[in-house]
Amino acid sequence: MRASTPVSLAKRTDFPLLAAQPGLVYLDSAATSQKPKAVLDAIQRYYETENANPHRGAYALSAAATEAYHQARERVARFIGVADADTLIFVRGTTEGLNLVASTWGRANVKAGDNVVVTRMEHHANFVPWQQLCLAAGAEFRIVELDAAGGVDLAMMARLVDAKTKVVAFGQVSNALGTINPVAEFVKIARAQAPQALVVCDGAQGVPHLRVSVDAMGVDVYAFSGHKVGGPMGSGAVVVRRPILEKMPPYHFGGDMIEWVNDRDSTWNVLPHRFEAGTPNVEAAVGLAAACDYLESLGMDAVREHELLLTTAAMRALSEIDGVTLFGTPTAEGRSGVVSFAVADVHPHDVATMLDAAGVCVRAGHHCAQPLMRTLGAAATTRASFWVYNTLEDVDALVRAVRAARERFGA
Amino acid sequence: MRASTPVSLAKRTDFPLLAAQPGLVYLDSAATSQKPKAVLDAIQRYYETENANPHRGAYALSAAATEAYHQARERVARFIGVADADTLIFVRGTTEGLNLVASTWGRANVKAGDNVVVTRMEHHANFVPWQQLCLAAGAEFRIVELDAAGGVDLAMMARLVDAKTKVVAFGQVSNALGTINPVAEFVKIARAQAPQALVVCDGAQGVPHLRVSVDAMGVDVYAFSGHKVGGPMGSGAVVVRRPILEKMPPYHFGGDMIEWVNDRDSTWNVLPHRFEAGTPNVEAAVGLAAACDYLESLGMDAVREHELLLTTAAMRALSEIDGVTLFGTPTAEGRSGVVSFAVADVHPHDVATMLDAAGVCVRAGHHCAQPLMRTLGAAATTRASFWVYNTLEDVDALVRAVRAARERFGA
Repeated sequence: MRASTPVSLAKRTDFPLLAAQPGLVYLDSAATSQKPKAVLDAIQRYYETENANPHRGAYALSAAATEAYHQARERVARFIGVADADTLIFVRGTTEGLNLVASTWGRANVKAGDNVVVTRMEHHANFVPWQQLCLAAGAEFRIVELDAAGGVDLAMMARLVDAKTKVVAFGQVSNALGTINPVAEFVKIARAQAPQALVVCDGAQGVPHLRVSVDAMGVDVYAFSGHKVGGPMGSGAVVVRRPILEKMPPYHFGGDMIEWVNDRDSTWNVLPHRFEAGTPNVEAAVGLAAACDYLESLGMDAVREHELLLTTAAMRALSEIDGVTLFGTPTAEGRSGVVSFAVADVHPHDVATMLDAAGVCVRAGHHCAQPLMRTLGAAATTRASFWVYNTLEDVDALVRAVRAARERFGA
Repeated sequence: MRASTPVSLAKRTDFPLLAAQPGLVYLDSAATSQKPKAVLDAIQRYYETENANPHRGAYALSAAATEAYHQARERVARFIGVADADTLIFVRGTTEGLNLVASTWGRANVKAGDNVVVTRMEHHANFVPWQQLCLAAGAEFRIVELDAAGGVDLAMMARLVDAKTKVVAFGQVSNALGTINPVAEFVKIARAQAPQALVVCDGAQGVPHLRVSVDAMGVDVYAFSGHKVGGPMGSGAVVVRRPILEKMPPYHFGGDMIEWVNDRDSTWNVLPHRFEAGTPNVEAAVGLAAACDYLESLGMDAVREHELLLTTAAMRALSEIDGVTLFGTPTAEGRSGVVSFAVADVHPHDVATMLDAAGVCVRAGHHCAQPLMRTLGAAATTRASFWVYNTLEDVDALVRAVRAARERFGA
């Protein structure tokens, strides 16, 4: 019996794009996910029945939009384990969420002589904002390197975090390698050695794959993108612990975020509105809430179990191909549904192109993690990433196509 | 013959929400517009056939998403008369567009001793970012008052704009009153008296109603919101003249906007990507492009003519009601499809609530223009705003409901 039973966790027919293209093997969900019909329906339903500018309208339709937006916030907060929903700010995605914090809290608090600690594994969105903040402030930008096993070097982190550390920023899961980081250890080091520091977690690759409880995690800031969890593009959120958020300077200025606008100065609205200037994107919020419902109907434990099955199979089969090198932690248990690899003598972009010809969609490149790539000694890798709609058959298709690429171009 | 022939410019059936609620008289398009089916279809089609993360994918689906995003930029740029499409940055909306410029160009260029000139008529989104920038920089924040006719006082603007002026910011059309501002006059004053100044136009209330040519307008910065022109929420753009944009410091840091990320510093991608960090919202771009197609199929001259018809009728009929005061310029020609008014002895919110009971959706409040409201001597107004799907019958419904409110509560 082959390992290729076409069992996915989610029904392929739940995803209109995949249903319409039966031959497509979509293995780029770490970049963006396909959308369940339930999400597309929620978007349409919003526009067809409730669309209005929320918050300021004294008519039923606007009240409906306001309520839809409010409910979506509660729903999303619940999904990621945030009890205080008004500390969840809707943003365009992880990148905006992290930049929002770096440009407000960061500029107000990081000064010359301070330092900011990040890891070698960060996505550019959780690396460059802090690097540039340090350059502007005259602060020191410190990078925790990887240890011999390819994980973040905890001993080095413990050495780098000190009384002058103002931010400790790390990803929950590496987008390039899938590595699940020991967030609890990071938080312990940060709290013990830098109680003054803002502890920032990039959850972009966590929320799609793991049951997340931001409150239990004990970080100060957590950001994620809706488009990677089946939600609409342009959806996402950043959560900031209330005592910090209450004191954080505003981000954008404009409608909804103000209380009074006087000629000389202005005062600000209560949370969460203070950080959401302009007409809120109700569509994005409602769509993201529908994605949370969908994932909860599958069960996040089942999602994790399913991805482990696929990742285990892919790692085993790929590592058996002569000339294929896998990057990242050696066990599937230590990673989300990501397999990043190189094929000897074949450029990652050529691998991806050959895979595309076989209907297999993967990503090749630096995965917005150039600092990590330099350490891996690879300018680029080919990355396959799995999600709820993938099957062991998809893994087989990947492996067959990689084998063909190796046979055609390799050695 | 009554003036209530139910002729709209656009077919009501083009708008699913309006088609499903035949009794609804939606007069709040200045806050947000209803969406044509063509836009909702474009969103669905994108997600069902082309959805992927653009720019970095070496497979056909990602190439399709990249192309869709690129084409949408070209389409939107053409719609607002911008020849150099790569100077059009997709943002969430006007508020983000203006804040983007204030927080990048503004922080880099506005210093102590400089001044920034805005008008009394600005929406908070084109007022507070400049006010706060001045407070942070130690620059002077100058407000051009209204003249006796209720327009921006050009003589006062000419007095306030000087050799230390770094920004001249104004709206193309007032959101609260509908006043169409003499942008050409503003630009002339700014260029003559402050050639060093950044000339910023808030086009949020212009693009839905007027044929816009940003290039011909001669401003440096132009921002508008997609959700007010039939496009999706979370869509919009800011255009910045290339020589300025090329030198403008980055906004958000992260994926797509970088060239090289080194441990100590980073370099930036070419335009427009440099200002679009993170996964682009392809849905928003594609939906906004579809909205441009839709409006162009109606013809922007026809849109203007239609709104003039409705506004003329509304102004005439409302002004005939005893106790009703109209705000803003006295002729319909001088305004977009907005009628802002007060009913003696009835609070604007009560007017709106009574109108809602009659199925008429209007907005009551300060319209995110508190500085203007103070000058009008009204804490709030009731605002009816028209768009392509409204009819003279809608105007009649408005007038009937206002009359009823007046008869029930007034005097």
